[in-house]
Amino acid sequence: MITSPDNEKLKLIRKLAAKRERDRTGLFAAEGEDLVAAAAAARIAPEFVLVAGEDVEPELLDAVSSLGSGTRVIGVYPQAWSESGGELSLYLHGVGDPGNVGTAIRSAHALCDGPVVLGPGCADPYSPKAVRASMGSVFARPPARAEAAELAGTLVALDAGAEADLADLEVAAPVVVCVGAEREGLPPGVAGAAAATARIPIRPGGPESLNVAMAAAIALYELGNRMPRS
Amino acid sequence: MITSPDNEKLKLIRKLAAKRERDRTGLFAAEGEDLVAAAAAARIAPEFVLVAGEDVEPELLDAVSSLGSGTRVIGVYPQAWSESGGELSLYLHGVGDPGNVGTAIRSAHALCDGPVVLGPGCADPYSPKAVRASMGSVFARPPARAEAAELAGTLVALDAGAEADLADLEVAAPVVVCVGAEREGLPPGVAGAAAATARIPIRPGGPESLNVAMAAAIALYELGNRMPRS
Repeated sequence: MITSPDNEKLKLIRKLAAKRERDRTGLFAAEGEDLVAAAAAARIAPEFVLVAGEDVEPELLDAVSSLGSGTRVIGVYPQAWSESGGELSLYLHGVGDPGNVGTAIRSAHALCDGPVVLGPGCADPYSPKAVRASMGSVFARPPARAEAAELAGTLVALDAGAEADLADLEVAAPVVVCVGAEREGLPPGVAGAAAATARIPIRPGGPESLNVAMAAAIALYELGNRMPRS
Repeated sequence: MITSPDNEKLKLIRKLAAKRERDRTGLFAAEGEDLVAAAAAARIAPEFVLVAGEDVEPELLDAVSSLGSGTRVIGVYPQAWSESGGELSLYLHGVGDPGNVGTAIRSAHALCDGPVVLGPGCADPYSPKAVRASMGSVFARPPARAEAAELAGTLVALDAGAEADLADLEVAAPVVVCVGAEREGLPPGVAGAAAATARIPIRPGGPESLNVAMAAAIALYELGNRMPRS
């Protein structure tokens, strides 16, 4: 039973809240029984797992938690990275909100066979907030890292100002849905390299745009419905 | 220029971080130029607006901000509530996460003509996090409050375990898409009262479910595409 806050494992968990330390070690922390169970289901071996009241005094685990009090378990895991690919996948560019990145990883896990590919300017998918938002999908379907120019297949750029509706688009797999930051959208280099640009129609009087993760989920649903299921 | 932290307006903003005070006063605070602009676009008159460096010393505004430092403007507004209705609308039951509630309000504003109807157990749509996630749609399309039994139209319950795919559902307007909490789903009373139950198909090996706000957005997109546009 760990009874000292100076314990090396506790110190490591605390440090892993910082991206620099995650980058340096290639590790990340996952908090909560659901995430630790998701890792086990995906057959990812932890570096170690600390259970409150069994391995460590509960107050000490709470003190290193990034979610606050009442944490029952924290596991430390190696970061995993996929290669881009699949019949249908998602490319994010400049999506800096970790909640959106994590939610997109969960949506992609549900709706397509390829990973989320993270381009320049995206939030770290292994930050506590992104891991939490992925609800464990980061274990089952680790993200990839690439620039849009490196991607194979038909790139479909989502753009609220496009003329074509996504529903009218005819595309052949493999398809990569490309989504940019909420205000800036995709940079010209990515939009220009895409084979097609399409919009999700917004009602008259509606907002300027959808949330990035919403737009991505709708696009994966729309295009995935037209492809044969694996 | 406000130079004292004991100023009544600053004290009110600080208090409005608590739901009890929002309930008591019927007011809420919106932070940031984009939200204040969204209120103006929706022709909602503020109780007052404080601009850093013009009306108030910047450090004092930062101190009452719920978003942290660098806040340039905070407005206090009256809460608005819609009646349920519309050809297509969204009912949430037990959705306790304010980010999901706010994002759903934004999605509904983009994808359907009716409001988000908040049933029992939903997060306050006027909390700082929900208002921020709505990106101002809470001004343009205020939410409604009702129990499922009070709703008119065809209720379509989303359920990851349903047999019918949402894409195969034949429905006639008015339609209310009903979504429950992420783990619990809809309570039997609501699911049983629905005219149809449908699922958004998840790939083999995928997660158990989609994020609530994602599922709602996909369902509004799917059903909205089959209805004539107003």
